Amino acid sequence: MVGERFSRGLARLQEVVGDAGVKVVEALQDIAPDMARYTVEFSYGDIYSRPMLDDRGRQIAAVAALTVVGHCRPQLKVHINGALNVGCEPEMIIEVILQMVLYAGFPAATNAMLAAHEVFKERGVLPRSASDSGGAGERQAL
Amino acid sequence: MVGERFSRGLARLQEVVGDAGVKVVEALQDIAPDMARYTVEFSYGDIYSRPMLDDRGRQIAAVAALTVVGHCRPQLKVHINGALNVGCEPEMIIEVILQMVLYAGFPAATNAMLAAHEVFKERGVLPRSASDSGGAGERQAL
Amino acid sequence: MVGERFSRGLARLQEVVGDAGVKVVEALQDIAPDMARYTVEFSYGDIYSRPMLDDRGRQIAAVAALTVVGHCRPQLKVHINGALNVGCEPEMIIEVILQMVLYAGFPAATNAMLAAHEVFKERGVLPRSASDSGGAGERQAL
Amino acid sequence: MVGERFSRGLARLQEVVGDAGVKVVEALQDIAPDMARYTVEFSYGDIYSRPMLDDRGRQIAAVAALTVVGHCRPQLKVHINGALNVGCEPEMIIEVILQMVLYAGFPAATNAMLAAHEVFKERGVLPRSASDSGGAGERQAL
Amino acid sequence: MVGERFSRGLARLQEVVGDAGVKVVEALQDIAPDMARYTVEFSYGDIYSRPMLDDRGRQIAAVAALTVVGHCRPQLKVHINGALNVGCEPEMIIEVILQMVLYAGFPAATNAMLAAHEVFKERGVLPRSASDSGGAGERQAL
Amino acid sequence: MVGERFSRGLARLQEVVGDAGVKVVEALQDIAPDMARYTVEFSYGDIYSRPMLDDRGRQIAAVAALTVVGHCRPQLKVHINGALNVGCEPEMIIEVILQMVLYAGFPAATNAMLAAHEVFKERGVLPRSASDSGGAGERQAL
Repeated sequence: MVGERFSRGLARLQEVVGDAGVKVVEALQDIAPDMARYTVEFSYGDIYSRPMLDDRGRQIAAVAALTVVGHCRPQLKVHINGALNVGCEPEMIIEVILQMVLYAGFPAATNAMLAAHEVFKERGVLPRSASDSGGAGERQAL
Repeated sequence: MVGERFSRGLARLQEVVGDAGVKVVEALQDIAPDMARYTVEFSYGDIYSRPMLDDRGRQIAAVAALTVVGHCRPQLKVHINGALNVGCEPEMIIEVILQMVLYAGFPAATNAMLAAHEVFKERGVLPRSASDSGGAGERQAL
Repeated sequence: MVGERFSRGLARLQEVVGDAGVKVVEALQDIAPDMARYTVEFSYGDIYSRPMLDDRGRQIAAVAALTVVGHCRPQLKVHINGALNVGCEPEMIIEVILQMVLYAGFPAATNAMLAAHEVFKERGVLPRSASDSGGAGERQAL
Repeated sequence: MVGERFSRGLARLQEVVGDAGVKVVEALQDIAPDMARYTVEFSYGDIYSRPMLDDRGRQIAAVAALTVVGHCRPQLKVHINGALNVGCEPEMIIEVILQMVLYAGFPAATNAMLAAHEVFKERGVLPRSASDSGGAGERQAL
Repeated sequence: MVGERFSRGLARLQEVVGDAGVKVVEALQDIAPDMARYTVEFSYGDIYSRPMLDDRGRQIAAVAALTVVGHCRPQLKVHINGALNVGCEPEMIIEVILQMVLYAGFPAATNAMLAAHEVFKERGVLPRSASDSGGAGERQAL
Repeated sequence: MVGERFSRGLARLQEVVGDAGVKVVEALQDIAPDMARYTVEFSYGDIYSRPMLDDRGRQIAAVAALTVVGHCRPQLKVHINGALNVGCEPEMIIEVILQMVLYAGFPAATNAMLAAHEVFKERGVLPRSASDSGGAGERQAL
C-alpha cells in the first residue's frame, strides 16, 4: 500500500527529472529501499511539490548547488537533465554553471560544465555558442 | 582612469546587490584594492552582466550556492538582499534555502534560513508564512 | 491537527537532543514553519526513530559528521548535548572528535573540541583527562 | 628497525580495516613512504589504538565522516569493510549512511550507499532489506 | 617525561607560528590534552620539521589550504602570523589569498583577506597597496 | 580580434601549466567558449601574471588548494605538472601534499598523492624516496 506522499513524489520525480532520476532511485532500492522511498516522498513528494518557486527556478538552484558540492556528478547530470525537461535552454544552464566560478572556483565549475556537455550531447541539444563556427575559430587560437 | 568593465561592473553591483554588496567590496579595498577591482570587473562587469539568465535566476543561483558553501554568511546575506532587490518574494528565497536541505543537509540550510530572517527583519519584509497566526499556532505545539 | 510522524518526531527530538535541539527548531519556526515541521517529521520522526542503530551510535555519527562539516557550530553543540543525553561519556565524545583529525584535519577537529568544551562546561561534565592535575602539569610545559 | 608505534599501528591496521586498508597504504608507499608510515603510526598506532571508544564506534564515526567528505570513495570503502570486520551488521552501516542525508544531503548519502552496496556484494553480505522479495515488489512500483 | 618528537615540535611551533599558535594549542589542552600533544608532536615535530620545503613554502601552503577550508578562521590567522614570522611579505600573503578566488571562489577569498587585514593591523604591517593614497583614491570611486 | 589580457593569459597558460592546462581549456571551449576565454584572461592574464609571488610559490599554493578541494583531480594534475614545469622538485610537491594531511585529513591527501604519482610516472620523474631500494624494503614489512 502506497501513501499519498509517495504517489505525488513519484509523479513529480518522473515529471521533473525523468528517466535519469528514476535510475538513481532504482539503484538505491537494491541496497536501501527505505532511502529510495524517502527520496521519493521527501525530496519529490514534499520539497519538489511545493509552490512559491517554479520548476525552472528549482532546477537552476539544484544545478548551482550540485556544482558547488562538486563530488556528486551523477546527481548533477540528473538535474541538468531536469533543467532541460522543465524548459530551461541549454544556454541558461551554462550560465548558471559559469556563474559558479564566483562561488566555487574555476575547477569545480569546469567539471560541471563538462558534465553538462555530456548531457547535451546525449540529448542532441548543444548550445549555439558551442556549435557555431565562431567558437571553432577561437578554439584554434590555443 | 577607470575602464569599461569596471564602470559596467560598478553599475551592476549597485543595481543588483546595492549597499550590502558595496560594503563588502569597500572592506576589501582597505586590504587588497586589486581584489576589490576584480570583484567589480569580473564578478559584476563580466559574469553578472551576461544575458541568458535574468537577475532573479542569478540571485536564486547565488543564494543556493552560498547556502551550500556554508561558511560565507556575510556574502549570503548580500545575495539575499540582492534577491529582494531584483524582485524575488521573501517566500521564494525561503523556498530556495529550504530546497538546499536536499543538497547540503538540514544544519547548513537552517543557518542560511536564520541569515535570511535577519535580512528580512532589517528590511521589514517578513514572509507571510512566518508572521500569520497559523504559524504561531503550530509553533506552540513545541 | 498534528500527524503521527510529527508527534513521534517531537517526542524523539525532546528525548535525544532536548532543549538545545528544541531551541534550534523554534528559531526556524519564526522564519520557515514548514522547515521546522520537516525537521521534526523527517529528521526525528523518520530517521531518528529507526531501529538498527541505537541512540549512542546515532549521536556518535552526528558529532563525527558535524565536525567534518565544520561550519555548523550550533548544530554540533546540539548533538554533543544529544550524545551526553543518551549516555555517552564526555571522554567518548572527545575520542570521536579527536578521530576526526584523520578525516577533516586538525583545525576542524580543534574547533569542534572547543565547542565540546563549551557544552561540557555548561553542563558541568568536564572529562577526567581535562580536569586532573596531570593535564595541568603537561600544560605548563608549553 | 621499526618502532613501537609502527608495530602497534600495523597490527591495528590489519585487525580493523584488513586487506582493503593495507592496499591503500601500500599504494602510498610507492610514492611517499613517509606518509605511508605516518598513516600506520599516527592513524592506527596512535588514534585507532586509543581506549574510550570501541572499534564499532570508531568505524561508525569513520563511515559517517567519509560520507560527508564525499570525494574519498576508496577510503569510504575501506572503512565500510572495517565496520564489517569489527562486527557491525550491514544494516547498521546502512543506517549510518542513511542518517547522513541530514548532514550532507541526499546525493552524498546516495553515493555512499552505492559504495556500501559494492562492498557488501564483494563480501556476500547483502542486508536483509535489500535482498528480500518485499523490496523487489516496491521496486517495480517505479 | 617528554619525548623527542614533542620537544622538537614545541620548538618548531614557537619558531613558526609563535604565540598565536601556542594559544590554540593551550586552549586545546584544557579539553583534550592528548590532542594538544599530537598537534605538537605530529604537526610540528613530524610534518613541520621535514626538509624539502622551506618555512615560507609551508606557510604559503597552509594559508592557501585554510582559505579553501573556509571555516577555520582562528587557524588561518595563526598561519598568516606564521607566514609573517618566517619572512613572507604582507604583499605575498595577499597574493596567495587572492589566487584562491580561482580555487575556492570570491566569498571564501574575501573572508580570508579580511582575516589577513586583522592580523596585519594587529602587527602594524599593512601592505603598501592598502595604505598608499592611490588605494584611497580608487576607493572613493565606489 | 584578441585582447591584451587574452594574449598575456595564453602565454602564461602555456608557460606555467603547458599542454596539460591547454587541454582543460580546450575541452571547455567545446561547451562554453566564454568560460574558456575567462579562464585564459582572468586566471592566467590577470592572477597568474601578477608579481609578488613567484611561479613556484603559486604552484605550491595551487597544489595545496586543490588537494583540499578534493574533487578536482584533473586540475590537481594540471598544477602538479605546472609545479614541475616551473622548477619544483618532485620531493617538494610531495611535501606540500603530505602537509595537507593537517588541513584536509589523510584520505584527501592520500588521493592527491596518488594523482602526483601518476603525473610523475607520465613524466619519468619519480622522487628519490619512492624509487630507492630502502622504500621497497620497508614496503615488504606490510
